[in-house]
Amino acid sequence: MRDPDFTLTAGPTMASPRTLAALGAPITYDYDPVFLERFRALEQKIAAIYQTKADVVLMQGEAVLGLEAAARALVRPGKKALNLASGVYGKWFGLWLAEYGAELVEIEVPYDESIDPADVERAFGDHPEIELVAFVHSETPSGTVNPAREIGRIAKAHGALVIADVVSSLGGEELRPDDWGLDVCVAGPQKCLAGPPGLSLMTVSDEAWGAIRANPAAPRGSFLSMLDWKERWIEGGRTAFPYTPSVVDIHGLDGACDDLLELGLEESIALHHRAAQATRAGVKGMGLELWARSEDICASCVTAVKTPAGVGNLELLAHIRERYGVMLSPGYGELKERLVRLGHMGPAARSLYPIVALSAFGRGLADLGVAVDIGAGVDAALEVLAQPTAAFTPERV
Amino acid sequence: MRDPDFTLTAGPTMASPRTLAALGAPITYDYDPVFLERFRALEQKIAAIYQTKADVVLMQGEAVLGLEAAARALVRPGKKALNLASGVYGKWFGLWLAEYGAELVEIEVPYDESIDPADVERAFGDHPEIELVAFVHSETPSGTVNPAREIGRIAKAHGALVIADVVSSLGGEELRPDDWGLDVCVAGPQKCLAGPPGLSLMTVSDEAWGAIRANPAAPRGSFLSMLDWKERWIEGGRTAFPYTPSVVDIHGLDGACDDLLELGLEESIALHHRAAQATRAGVKGMGLELWARSEDICASCVTAVKTPAGVGNLELLAHIRERYGVMLSPGYGELKERLVRLGHMGPAARSLYPIVALSAFGRGLADLGVAVDIGAGVDAALEVLAQPTAAFTPERV
Amino acid sequence: MRDPDFTLTAGPTMASPRTLAALGAPITYDYDPVFLERFRALEQKIAAIYQTKADVVLMQGEAVLGLEAAARALVRPGKKALNLASGVYGKWFGLWLAEYGAELVEIEVPYDESIDPADVERAFGDHPEIELVAFVHSETPSGTVNPAREIGRIAKAHGALVIADVVSSLGGEELRPDDWGLDVCVAGPQKCLAGPPGLSLMTVSDEAWGAIRANPAAPRGSFLSMLDWKERWIEGGRTAFPYTPSVVDIHGLDGACDDLLELGLEESIALHHRAAQATRAGVKGMGLELWARSEDICASCVTAVKTPAGVGNLELLAHIRERYGVMLSPGYGELKERLVRLGHMGPAARSLYPIVALSAFGRGLADLGVAVDIGAGVDAALEVLAQPTAAFTPERV
Amino acid sequence: MRDPDFTLTAGPTMASPRTLAALGAPITYDYDPVFLERFRALEQKIAAIYQTKADVVLMQGEAVLGLEAAARALVRPGKKALNLASGVYGKWFGLWLAEYGAELVEIEVPYDESIDPADVERAFGDHPEIELVAFVHSETPSGTVNPAREIGRIAKAHGALVIADVVSSLGGEELRPDDWGLDVCVAGPQKCLAGPPGLSLMTVSDEAWGAIRANPAAPRGSFLSMLDWKERWIEGGRTAFPYTPSVVDIHGLDGACDDLLELGLEESIALHHRAAQATRAGVKGMGLELWARSEDICASCVTAVKTPAGVGNLELLAHIRERYGVMLSPGYGELKERLVRLGHMGPAARSLYPIVALSAFGRGLADLGVAVDIGAGVDAALEVLAQPTAAFTPERV
Repeated sequence: MRDPDFTLTAGPTMASPRTLAALGAPITYDYDPVFLERFRALEQKIAAIYQTKADVVLMQGEAVLGLEAAARALVRPGKKALNLASGVYGKWFGLWLAEYGAELVEIEVPYDESIDPADVERAFGDHPEIELVAFVHSETPSGTVNPAREIGRIAKAHGALVIADVVSSLGGEELRPDDWGLDVCVAGPQKCLAGPPGLSLMTVSDEAWGAIRANPAAPRGSFLSMLDWKERWIEGGRTAFPYTPSVVDIHGLDGACDDLLELGLEESIALHHRAAQATRAGVKGMGLELWARSEDICASCVTAVKTPAGVGNLELLAHIRERYGVMLSPGYGELKERLVRLGHMGPAARSLYPIVALSAFGRGLADLGVAVDIGAGVDAALEVLAQPTAAFTPERV
Repeated sequence: MRDPDFTLTAGPTMASPRTLAALGAPITYDYDPVFLERFRALEQKIAAIYQTKADVVLMQGEAVLGLEAAARALVRPGKKALNLASGVYGKWFGLWLAEYGAELVEIEVPYDESIDPADVERAFGDHPEIELVAFVHSETPSGTVNPAREIGRIAKAHGALVIADVVSSLGGEELRPDDWGLDVCVAGPQKCLAGPPGLSLMTVSDEAWGAIRANPAAPRGSFLSMLDWKERWIEGGRTAFPYTPSVVDIHGLDGACDDLLELGLEESIALHHRAAQATRAGVKGMGLELWARSEDICASCVTAVKTPAGVGNLELLAHIRERYGVMLSPGYGELKERLVRLGHMGPAARSLYPIVALSAFGRGLADLGVAVDIGAGVDAALEVLAQPTAAFTPERV
Repeated sequence: MRDPDFTLTAGPTMASPRTLAALGAPITYDYDPVFLERFRALEQKIAAIYQTKADVVLMQGEAVLGLEAAARALVRPGKKALNLASGVYGKWFGLWLAEYGAELVEIEVPYDESIDPADVERAFGDHPEIELVAFVHSETPSGTVNPAREIGRIAKAHGALVIADVVSSLGGEELRPDDWGLDVCVAGPQKCLAGPPGLSLMTVSDEAWGAIRANPAAPRGSFLSMLDWKERWIEGGRTAFPYTPSVVDIHGLDGACDDLLELGLEESIALHHRAAQATRAGVKGMGLELWARSEDICASCVTAVKTPAGVGNLELLAHIRERYGVMLSPGYGELKERLVRLGHMGPAARSLYPIVALSAFGRGLADLGVAVDIGAGVDAALEVLAQPTAAFTPERV
Repeated sequence: MRDPDFTLTAGPTMASPRTLAALGAPITYDYDPVFLERFRALEQKIAAIYQTKADVVLMQGEAVLGLEAAARALVRPGKKALNLASGVYGKWFGLWLAEYGAELVEIEVPYDESIDPADVERAFGDHPEIELVAFVHSETPSGTVNPAREIGRIAKAHGALVIADVVSSLGGEELRPDDWGLDVCVAGPQKCLAGPPGLSLMTVSDEAWGAIRANPAAPRGSFLSMLDWKERWIEGGRTAFPYTPSVVDIHGLDGACDDLLELGLEESIALHHRAAQATRAGVKGMGLELWARSEDICASCVTAVKTPAGVGNLELLAHIRERYGVMLSPGYGELKERLVRLGHMGPAARSLYPIVALSAFGRGLADLGVAVDIGAGVDAALEVLAQPTAAFTPERV
């Protein structure tokens, strides 16, 4: 089979020419002075995108590594932790917390809903000894978002630390770790930043470092160790890596960050929101159904759509990929057969990429005999895309 | 500072144009059918380079991850393990074995020597209950090799499993896991294969899988889990990854493997040996001293040279990098200040790259006032490079 | 302004990742043995795409150079030449013929029509001394094609030589120089082959070489000389170039030819025809008007559409480019203000690129207040794109 | 055969990673606003490198095109022209001048010498009606330079126009068209600028434009026409190209110019001079003989060395290329069998590339049985390369 013409997925997503050029640049030795300087500067760029003054840690494996590392670093047997599960990833994180010994309190909602801050407040009322709260900002598998700001503020008010899975929200949703009290954030480069997968982009607050240092179970001398990065890299004056960094991925992420910073963070977020709204308008215009119970909780990075009854999901996507050269995503985990996800991340949030995703999806369904009004969907989506991005700019906090 | 003109280090090493083009190719979704097929085919290419029929596992983090994963998977508290330490990495591996609960037997030799098989035989005599042997084939920090074939065969004769750190030997030294009884091998792409760092290239024998499955301490549901790859990816029919693979690094490694396979494995090994011999001849010709006690145990991927007395090692290397645009490596770990390492891996094992490394090193020393006969060194090195690679082909076993 | 997201123009068109990688490969010396071999092999690939046994000449400047070179080589003062003008380029070619001294007979039709073979037959009846016929196969400025087969056969029947401007038809229209009697063809790489501009891809029959050699006015020792290529390069055993070839463009074209040959010439032509038909269906579905008087004469590489009355053409295209990141082409020459051209060449003939062009064009018009039914257009275009390419395969002659 | 490891030739020369990335960037439409803007900005960068206020014209074919275009534009039958021939290219240029009708006065010196300004002065004394002087600044085929400043000033003093072939001197030799009275300069990107071949980088003074406009034989409506560029592009407000520019080569040259301008023009010239002096020291140190009669007239871009007696030149270079992966150049034209040329242009003027060229050349000779002291040559060359570039900075005029 040929390479895809369009990758409009839930991530990894398509990268810009600048990012691809950076990925194809000569590989340098990790202790080359130019690489060291680039690594340090990249940490600053990530900090700027996070709008944080906290430490940035770039762990060298895809975001799952960073999430596991955070869980291991912050959990010690018997610690009471509140896990908020509104999707596949949120649910999984609770399993990790429990595995590492946390006493788990969990709020779980159906995967087409999002967490209600009132429930979080109530949980603290019922369990005032909660020390740690974990949640997913943007649940990529179901295309929904949770109210990060409110969750963070409630947790802070009760003195708990917060781990936020912002894998697919950084660069696409408003996100203010410092203001909102998110102690550890973990993002992936292959979502709204449109970089290569293979890295975990983390922020760590001083409070979080304090808790980690105080935790005898926190890994040291391990690929999973946040402390190795703190003690060897950061406190060592940023001259020695705990292990060989992924030089190529660092180069590529650097290019992706330059793209985003040149564009402007606000503009990036606005582009993602406009693309998402256009896609939702298109889906509804075609006569199809969004997965999320309400548009208010729809993510900006990916739009999840219910696969019409009687259609084999994977068969549909294989047909679209083969006939039209467009790669879309199925659901993930238990939602695999029930959803199609149209991605609009990074470059795919620009221009007419949402039209490509909608046309491919709609026509693929039509080919399988589903009645769908593609034209109406495209018209509705273009109506949104015709608006200036200023209309989608997040309010400043 | 400018990017380097030459990267002639202990790895990451310079990549070929084909590898760079592969790294710069469009990023695809990890479940794109083309990517899935490429990933599977790459496993076969790695198996061909390893000349093995065992499972190949490509863990998605630099080789340290694979080594840690192997140690965690195979050690359970109380298991008796023999660790062979002839260098920095060998020594470290013993620390991991101990940390995960092994009862450690260790043979340690000075870091300019290599392990004597007779000592291994003797250790089994003293400790017949040894179940696991760990060693480093090519000790990159000191540029020495251990007798992998003999170590493997002795361990097999005593029924022990073997973990071999072949990070910098795969593609540059003769290596036959199946014949030699190496149950788990872990290589890095950024050494003799000249790919990007960020992956662990592993082989796992059936016996090793048996032991891992029998080990209740073997990680599951973790970035460090070998079993996740076995159960989810391999036994699941190679359709589902345990986590998002590093798409870009996979692309790049694929290009690097194509280079090596087109060249031929034997030819690749011969090139590395010729480059190493030329470099040693050059070092001696200049009047400098090799680190290894004997040329017999010198590695093919990198040549370690004693820094002349009175010279600041890091100052020397910074001068060479700044003035001549050539990046060489210092020592590593406790050898950091005492050695300079001239790399000749992948493309740097070809053509006249060893002359560049020698000239830069020699002239850098001269600039700092050391008397060194660069011309004699270059003459001696060229004498070796003028010979056909056939003279350096490893014997077939 | 940012780089475009989509280049869907009349050429240069967007290139494939393979072509881009080839363009970015190391620059080699033109007498490097690898480059010499690649150049020779590329001539064979071009011959295969032309399906010709005649000489292939790759002149090192964009196709205008090849056309001028052909005119200068074949015209001598007083020679009677028939020029067929159905568009801007055809008209221009007549000016060259006249400038170099030809006695010109010209058939000119409105630029939304194409040449009628009966008129060509009649011209030979009126002017039996015609020695040379010149025509444009695919008139890129107006998106129309001329009946190359019939023109060639009539000319041959009367013993005339034929110069065919196939700049934008090679790879997108059926074309058989040997069977149809086209003595000199000139194509551009930047159209259906989707390579870089900067080269003229020419075929030259023995009869044409005979006439050129017999022409004292044919340039020698000039950048415009076809004879230099024949005498120095071809007859010299393909070891010496008359001047430095454009190494990078040759690399890129080589990649583009590999793409096309892997795909298959018939499939390539079918893809272009399907994309063109889809685009026409879309244009009509939106309620807009094709430029060509009949769909029968519409080109496969580009679709020319009349700009609706009252719309400023360049203003429209600038708006589309700026707001949607899509680059379309205006008309060319005297048609500049009157047409919009939607390109579907090379990779842009695949997948859903025609939908992108139609959506951008339609929405751009809507933004300027033109009533246009974009949805109906997209539906109609998708109806065509849903058909297998087999339905568009040219008949074998 | 494999691609070369090192291209150390008389040009095309190796390009930087930035230039290669620019070459591999997406191909854009030539009327894309970003491309138009880049083209205009590139003209300014070329003007900066030329240090000129005159018009810059970028003709779209390798420098031979620009030279032919200049000769055709400035010569009309009967015009008296002085041609200065100190090498193959200078001699050729005279043939063109004569072909287009000039009454030729020629000063010719052996190709290992350079033009004496006193002879130029004398020629004006003998032929006061000379209107045009043509000369080659850096004769790449023989690695020699002519005194451009003096030639220009003498010509100006006598009211003649000057055409300067600066193909291989721009970026590597001091060059001041405005101060020195060089009316038309023609450079190639593939020499000291280390860009792709395929372009002619020209400056044209107002006086030259006046003469061209006054010349009825100056081409118009031709790929060879300078006037098309003046009238259509420059005077048309830089919005319309006379024909499709070589988009990819323009991208690449843009990257190459950014490299040079970041480095600084003076530093670039100094690097070329240092590399040339190092190479000459190495050649002499090995016991070989420079072609040029005096080091004073040796070019900074390439060093021409006499092939030792009894050695087959092409056989030698084929051996070096095949065994060591290093591409060097033979002589050119009538010097083809007599010289080896070691290139040190662009990136090859940096770092230890001269050592690679010298080692390959020396060892290749040794392999063929020639007695040569490579070590002494390398020592001597390193002695030069160890000096800071400041020692080689051209004096400011």
